[in-house]
Amino acid sequence: MQLKMKPISDIELDESMKVKELTTQMLASGGFTAKKLGVACDIVRKMFREKQCTIFLSFPACIISTGTRGVIRKLVEEKLVDVIVTTCGTLDHDLARVWKKYYHGEFLMDDVDLHRRGINRLGNILIPNDSYGIVLEQKMQPILRDIYSEGKKSLSSRQLAYEFGIRLNDKKSILYWAAKNDIPIYVPGITDGAFGSQLWLFKQQHSDFNIDILRDEQELSDIVFTAKKTGAIMIGGGISKHHVIWWNQFRGGMEYAVYLTTAEEWDGSLSGARIREAVSWGKVKEDAQYITVEGDATITLSMLVGSVLGESRPARH
Amino acid sequence: MQLKMKPISDIELDESMKVKELTTQMLASGGFTAKKLGVACDIVRKMFREKQCTIFLSFPACIISTGTRGVIRKLVEEKLVDVIVTTCGTLDHDLARVWKKYYHGEFLMDDVDLHRRGINRLGNILIPNDSYGIVLEQKMQPILRDIYSEGKKSLSSRQLAYEFGIRLNDKKSILYWAAKNDIPIYVPGITDGAFGSQLWLFKQQHSDFNIDILRDEQELSDIVFTAKKTGAIMIGGGISKHHVIWWNQFRGGMEYAVYLTTAEEWDGSLSGARIREAVSWGKVKEDAQYITVEGDATITLSMLVGSVLGESRPARH
Amino acid sequence: MQLKMKPISDIELDESMKVKELTTQMLASGGFTAKKLGVACDIVRKMFREKQCTIFLSFPACIISTGTRGVIRKLVEEKLVDVIVTTCGTLDHDLARVWKKYYHGEFLMDDVDLHRRGINRLGNILIPNDSYGIVLEQKMQPILRDIYSEGKKSLSSRQLAYEFGIRLNDKKSILYWAAKNDIPIYVPGITDGAFGSQLWLFKQQHSDFNIDILRDEQELSDIVFTAKKTGAIMIGGGISKHHVIWWNQFRGGMEYAVYLTTAEEWDGSLSGARIREAVSWGKVKEDAQYITVEGDATITLSMLVGSVLGESRPARH
Amino acid sequence: MQLKMKPISDIELDESMKVKELTTQMLASGGFTAKKLGVACDIVRKMFREKQCTIFLSFPACIISTGTRGVIRKLVEEKLVDVIVTTCGTLDHDLARVWKKYYHGEFLMDDVDLHRRGINRLGNILIPNDSYGIVLEQKMQPILRDIYSEGKKSLSSRQLAYEFGIRLNDKKSILYWAAKNDIPIYVPGITDGAFGSQLWLFKQQHSDFNIDILRDEQELSDIVFTAKKTGAIMIGGGISKHHVIWWNQFRGGMEYAVYLTTAEEWDGSLSGARIREAVSWGKVKEDAQYITVEGDATITLSMLVGSVLGESRPARH
Repeated sequence: MQLKMKPISDIELDESMKVKELTTQMLASGGFTAKKLGVACDIVRKMFREKQCTIFLSFPACIISTGTRGVIRKLVEEKLVDVIVTTCGTLDHDLARVWKKYYHGEFLMDDVDLHRRGINRLGNILIPNDSYGIVLEQKMQPILRDIYSEGKKSLSSRQLAYEFGIRLNDKKSILYWAAKNDIPIYVPGITDGAFGSQLWLFKQQHSDFNIDILRDEQELSDIVFTAKKTGAIMIGGGISKHHVIWWNQFRGGMEYAVYLTTAEEWDGSLSGARIREAVSWGKVKEDAQYITVEGDATITLSMLVGSVLGESRPARH
Repeated sequence: MQLKMKPISDIELDESMKVKELTTQMLASGGFTAKKLGVACDIVRKMFREKQCTIFLSFPACIISTGTRGVIRKLVEEKLVDVIVTTCGTLDHDLARVWKKYYHGEFLMDDVDLHRRGINRLGNILIPNDSYGIVLEQKMQPILRDIYSEGKKSLSSRQLAYEFGIRLNDKKSILYWAAKNDIPIYVPGITDGAFGSQLWLFKQQHSDFNIDILRDEQELSDIVFTAKKTGAIMIGGGISKHHVIWWNQFRGGMEYAVYLTTAEEWDGSLSGARIREAVSWGKVKEDAQYITVEGDATITLSMLVGSVLGESRPARH
Repeated sequence: MQLKMKPISDIELDESMKVKELTTQMLASGGFTAKKLGVACDIVRKMFREKQCTIFLSFPACIISTGTRGVIRKLVEEKLVDVIVTTCGTLDHDLARVWKKYYHGEFLMDDVDLHRRGINRLGNILIPNDSYGIVLEQKMQPILRDIYSEGKKSLSSRQLAYEFGIRLNDKKSILYWAAKNDIPIYVPGITDGAFGSQLWLFKQQHSDFNIDILRDEQELSDIVFTAKKTGAIMIGGGISKHHVIWWNQFRGGMEYAVYLTTAEEWDGSLSGARIREAVSWGKVKEDAQYITVEGDATITLSMLVGSVLGESRPARH
Repeated sequence: MQLKMKPISDIELDESMKVKELTTQMLASGGFTAKKLGVACDIVRKMFREKQCTIFLSFPACIISTGTRGVIRKLVEEKLVDVIVTTCGTLDHDLARVWKKYYHGEFLMDDVDLHRRGINRLGNILIPNDSYGIVLEQKMQPILRDIYSEGKKSLSSRQLAYEFGIRLNDKKSILYWAAKNDIPIYVPGITDGAFGSQLWLFKQQHSDFNIDILRDEQELSDIVFTAKKTGAIMIGGGISKHHVIWWNQFRGGMEYAVYLTTAEEWDGSLSGARIREAVSWGKVKEDAQYITVEGDATITLSMLVGSVLGESRPARH
């Protein structure tokens, strides 16, 4: 059988080049990860154009402490995704940044010195205690009391994210836009972070307050079983990524999948597993369109989203 | 100020060298990651010798699908750790392997072909459907009914792991030894996997069955607030690692920490964060003894545990 | 001492965003690697604006097999760098692509099948034998005879690259533009590849033909000792990167350095070493401006160059 | 077609376990990288037992600055390899450590402070100027004069390594044992480091002194064309690895190959390329036995060599 051979093209840059033009050239460049990023843009455009495709977005909390929060928020604000699965820290950072600021730092700062100053380091981001644990306790407990006072004593993670979101008024917030646009946020490890600790704290004085994590599962079940097609943009690994592909296996797998990661395949981790592994499990369809793009999402996701904005998704309902 | 300069020594191998001797030589070798592994062995020995140090062990599920399960089990069987935090998949694989076998594979097998054969690939491990989802449903539902029939209708992840563990009779099982040795297993993302899906399934027909995740948090709170000293062996990142350091911040940080990882620091992820970042948060003490060892835990953990076996921990209670 | 705290800003994307605007926002975003890429753009702009700064560019051969060759070529064509240090494969791929085409492939193709078809795989690039070894032998031997016939029997790698470059007429070629713009290309491992093997082959029948590698060293010595300031854009590791920083130590180190890499620091390799290690050796000045940006250069270099085009360097001579 | 399914076995550790026993268990464990290390041990044993297999060893310089030098030396001392290809820095560190000491350090030391103290940092190894550039100049120039005085004015890298090796009397030295055991050391980038700079310095006053790099190529050609079978243990990437596989393509590829690496495949680099890529080029035979083991060689190589010592190679000549 003859191989179909497509020649590669050299990238031609100019000083006013748009992000979208660059990723288009990357697709033609044949080059390593750049080519894959070009393919990812293509696949996301196809997801967007599908008439009835439920699009999942998963991501870890860390990027919400950075300016990349704006890129995620754009996806939510523009209704370009339908279901979010993330970790507890996303709620922490999104809320903390509604009320306080995070700051520039360096990876190699003196952590003992920072500790003495009451500043937490998250990679090259600096988070004063006052912008995190302290403000979260001050602001969250009244909101939890408010929610509780409405008779809502057993909530799923999706409900909690929504109840907080509708109480915000900040157009930079992911929770705000998710609530406004009715995009559910699922947090399968809801106790693992500051938001979770505030729930535990609240429970100390409200013993009939409970987290109903099985309700989240029921809803995810309903979503995957009613979806005509599904796709996902998965950023990073861990529980968020796994929960998206896990549930999609029950419908026979996703039709589209884009995975942005820095994780190694060779350690056998779920985080490092390339999408093709998910095909063996039926989490991604045998004939799905998918790509794994290696690199830090603070770079690759910005380029991806910057390249697919302007695509309008068909009305879904 | 004068630097204290310690000369490095060349490793002298012979064909009957013991693992413990090799890691001792690595410590003296000054060499990159090998040196760090030597330091890790030293720190773990110190943890073990402490009279009143509560030792946490965290790890991801993937390694439980491999022979490294035996290394983790040894730590539990010998009571060398006190508290386990892990992911849902650990329960999946440990239970599945009580009842069925997993097999050798390759990272680069044809995943479409495997899917058609009903074989799931996890890195280079092969898991037939019959050894996983199918057997877990067959075996777990009766056990859940049994637990439920004892009036246990709202259980924490720790309780669930225990209830399953005491019903096993398999000396290769981590759950078995943890239950037998009263070592609690916490799973903050308990719904994220086959075990979680079986809980959800069980709930369909037992609507008053619930998962009490805040009880886990209460217990962890009790553990860290009553511990005299704490230490942790943390394998891989994600929710398990984070949950260990998260709770330890409330007591002012751990005294000892060993972290085995393949994750990149530069992506800002919690998984990739080196232990020193945790110092800024007060999750690890300013003067703690800690080391991050890069590499796949299927190699490094075996060497670490092989090097510290034989150390006897003082009676704790 | 008070820390100067600069708040981070969320990235605001729109569909017509330019590459340059995105990297500017990345700088303000505070985010992990994206922030570093923003810093890299800033440092390169400063190098360009320096009146008398000799700028080194080093890179490995692999990217010359991809469309990223166009990005490197742009730097040479626009005289944005002054000295190039690279590996033998750069000559191989640049020349081969003057005469033949390279093609799109995938990382996971069947290599046995490709071998039987006479197609070499380089990552996700396909190189038929006819586009590589065969054409290089056909075309290089006559050129070598031509050079030799001019009485040039002992050449340095820089001279060889030049002699080939001036004999080309292809505006996509790096060798062409380097020769035209008098930008020296040094290849300290000149025998390691197809170009080197052709030299060896030529020597079989021209026993007085020799490679004068010490002449390259003499020239590099002259360059660093006469330079007022120096800077470097270093892509990837290995011999090219090392040769740049090695020579710069003899003048007390570089003033500017940008390093794009995927290599791990923890294995102790020169490739993985962050720039700050070079400070201890005096290869980079104590007060230099420098940054290491992790990620695949097919993405990061395109963004970097796309962001600094349009900067005009002052006339140097 | 039926898959042959081999069950995985849990590793059973005990406190007196030998390195060799552990890698044997790793082979049976089915686990991620540990399994691959077990396979690597098997392949190396097969190479050793072959009656007429020429075994190449390639490695980067960095590990020669650590105690892992002893592991490499053992392979040379015991004549377990036949041909060495490495970088200039190997000569630097092996010689420097004959005359002076290297010291323990940390990756995160203050490089400005180290620079002011005249201490160079190589990962977590400290090298005072006095142990490196200074002593190399003091000791190498007389040796070069001695070599030159014997009428040896044009030497290949192999000859240079030999001439230095026979002038040493240090059983910890790789050069010493290589010279004694007639194992050639090829350094295709001989000018790239302190040894190379000393050659350049020597040339200043001995203008008829030359490096004959094409002689190295001729010898490598003779080696691969006369070898019955070939195999390689390749540690790290760059020019050393490439030069081994490059020359082996001319004989139709190697029969055995073990590659220890930390490099990423996705960046398309030669260093990151897995061995199977070499099959498409004919650098490794289609039916060769080969494995790529990810991880730091300071750990994996020690385990590999510790596991295969005691195997006796058949007399080759």
